[in-house]
Amino acid sequence: MPIEQLQPDLKLAAALFDSLDRATRRGRGVVRDSYGDGEQAAHDIMRAAADHVGLQVSIDAIGNLMMTLPGRDRSAPRIMIGSHLDSVLQGGNYDGAAGVVAGLCVLSALKQSGTQAPCDITVMGIRAEESAWFDIAYLGSGGAFGLLDPACLSIARSDNGKSLESTLIERGFDPQPIRERRPLLDATRIRAYLELHIEQGPTLVAEKLPAAVVTGIRGCKRFRNARCVGRYGHSGAVNRPHRHDAVAATVALLHHLESVWLQHEKAGADLVVTSGELYTDPAMHGPSKIAGETHFVIDIRSVSAATMDAVAAEAMRAAARIGEAYRVDFDLGATSDSPPAVMDERLRAALRGLLRRPYEMASGAGHDAAVFAKMGIPTGMIFVRNDHGSHNPDEAMTLDDFGVGAQALLGLLLNFPLT
Amino acid sequence: MPIEQLQPDLKLAAALFDSLDRATRRGRGVVRDSYGDGEQAAHDIMRAAADHVGLQVSIDAIGNLMMTLPGRDRSAPRIMIGSHLDSVLQGGNYDGAAGVVAGLCVLSALKQSGTQAPCDITVMGIRAEESAWFDIAYLGSGGAFGLLDPACLSIARSDNGKSLESTLIERGFDPQPIRERRPLLDATRIRAYLELHIEQGPTLVAEKLPAAVVTGIRGCKRFRNARCVGRYGHSGAVNRPHRHDAVAATVALLHHLESVWLQHEKAGADLVVTSGELYTDPAMHGPSKIAGETHFVIDIRSVSAATMDAVAAEAMRAAARIGEAYRVDFDLGATSDSPPAVMDERLRAALRGLLRRPYEMASGAGHDAAVFAKMGIPTGMIFVRNDHGSHNPDEAMTLDDFGVGAQALLGLLLNFPLT
Repeated sequence: MPIEQLQPDLKLAAALFDSLDRATRRGRGVVRDSYGDGEQAAHDIMRAAADHVGLQVSIDAIGNLMMTLPGRDRSAPRIMIGSHLDSVLQGGNYDGAAGVVAGLCVLSALKQSGTQAPCDITVMGIRAEESAWFDIAYLGSGGAFGLLDPACLSIARSDNGKSLESTLIERGFDPQPIRERRPLLDATRIRAYLELHIEQGPTLVAEKLPAAVVTGIRGCKRFRNARCVGRYGHSGAVNRPHRHDAVAATVALLHHLESVWLQHEKAGADLVVTSGELYTDPAMHGPSKIAGETHFVIDIRSVSAATMDAVAAEAMRAAARIGEAYRVDFDLGATSDSPPAVMDERLRAALRGLLRRPYEMASGAGHDAAVFAKMGIPTGMIFVRNDHGSHNPDEAMTLDDFGVGAQALLGLLLNFPLT
Repeated sequence: MPIEQLQPDLKLAAALFDSLDRATRRGRGVVRDSYGDGEQAAHDIMRAAADHVGLQVSIDAIGNLMMTLPGRDRSAPRIMIGSHLDSVLQGGNYDGAAGVVAGLCVLSALKQSGTQAPCDITVMGIRAEESAWFDIAYLGSGGAFGLLDPACLSIARSDNGKSLESTLIERGFDPQPIRERRPLLDATRIRAYLELHIEQGPTLVAEKLPAAVVTGIRGCKRFRNARCVGRYGHSGAVNRPHRHDAVAATVALLHHLESVWLQHEKAGADLVVTSGELYTDPAMHGPSKIAGETHFVIDIRSVSAATMDAVAAEAMRAAARIGEAYRVDFDLGATSDSPPAVMDERLRAALRGLLRRPYEMASGAGHDAAVFAKMGIPTGMIFVRNDHGSHNPDEAMTLDDFGVGAQALLGLLLNFPLT
């Protein structure tokens, strides 16, 4: 068959999604706990499929699964396709897994047709991308490049309290490379990294598009532990000039940040600003009290580090200004930062050309692709339409939409733009 | 001793404040839960003191404690002195209790000196004035006058979920009078009601005055169970047009209400607006989520019912408008309402004459005195200076300031202006 007519192996994809669902659904949602039984079940399913397709399989020291279709020149830098196989607690069937399934059903098509690529193509089933279990994202990909702080080995798993180190050892893996910051992958030997992932927002559903090309991955600058301290008082007995109202001040700050967001948006900047946690102290607050304290989060995301820095700096200035006006003290605390990642322009252009209705968008959530891009590896991403968002049991991706994304991935491999 | 030199029994007062503190302090603050163990402990202490002083003690069907010094004409309408013995969660030692202690140390002085008043004087230790526990204020005084809606019997206590009815029965009291709206006190047999209370705001501290005469009591209109329901989402992956952000909408509503407050203030109206409880759902919220739900309180207070009504109506309109703009649903719920109350002019004048530096002010907080005033009973109130406000563990009233207020109370009884 002429390679222009080659199609991803969607029968394999359907079977894999079905197996994953059956093996890891617990109640309403799926549970593929990082370095736990759920994630391992997903790895076992992928490994069996790779054996069946006839790929070369290996597992690195920290459990990442490598499934390789050998190319003509085995010494040439390889192309990698990957995503993660873990999920949040009560997550959906597609977040992460769709990217590994896509890689496998594309390699299955190449293998079945006897098409040999110029270089090796490796599908990587990545470990532990979600921060839900060890409170750190990108354990698998970060560890593969020796990027992790060895201190992470003592992080306790959120459900059972076991350290990452003892969890790795129990699973038969080796914490030593993490302790030594020793890379398991040579970034210079990777030609490109490609990742297909479900969209985690509502844009493609709203735009009625099956798939999109990702422009970049938003970074995140987050005041995780912001606080406002005022003074508790009687809600009826203290007039405005004598108040130290932590809720009023926090409301003023968050409302101001919304206006800052609007200004940046008007100026054409990519930005989202969210306070997803906001609370008075349940042990101290009351319906007839002025609140003396609030806790809240300010989560700032953009594909531009400069935009995030500008908003964070304004948040600090506004907190000082508003704190003085309301006679309260804001302590926004330290930020946790993950930098934005930009996708490779040539890969983006090629992918646009492979979609019937080319559409580009930023990724709001983080992905392993951000780690590969950070390593200087040309990186491309495809989003597939998915209803109801992700990180919940109701993820809904159709096999048709998945097929559109996988077809673009296959098309990219067949006419790879990078040499 | 000539009655002009009579002084309140401050030794008794000091002992009572000390006993109350020891019996009901839990951690930093005091806990005298309405119809709970904390309030009961305070009643037990007062009852023992009344026995010691030699007063006649009775307890009405719903647990109000009556401590009477018989007068010359026992059939004449009596004078009542009262306040409540419950507190908010983590409250201070003086809010409420100071008024009962003042009554006891005044009657102790009269009793010890052998002074007999023309009529009975009854100190009433009132139940459950705070709305913190049953979401309704003035249970004790309202119930004593048969003013409560019998539906209140099914209100659940905020901490343990038990209904008022079953709580009353457990304590050995009788819900029947409330069910029948049957008064336990005859308002026509009460000559006057007097209440000493700590000031719950910072005015007397700022004015450097030990005590003041109260002109009137602000009413309260409160949305106790306001809620905003949006939709949870990924904080990075959902752009503004697709958000249903409950925190952003709630912030917009509360910020708007602050501007409404400022307008009324500029127009010369008496008003305070407070949201003392505001929280996202700890079981569902997260630092990388858009919040799908908030709970909050809107507490509106003024000496003018019309002002409160206007602000509440605007809150409803704004909630509808802002809810639409942010694609969320506000449900402000029902309001709980207590009307403003005016103090008796003759009692005010007499009390002014008894203070070395006469000073008058409105009460921002509600008091049982408002219920007696509503019943047409001439009512007078004395405020005592108190640092750090009330409804918090840091209430600070000195015994000297308390003595100034109690002395005025005693002076009023000795030269009572009403016949």
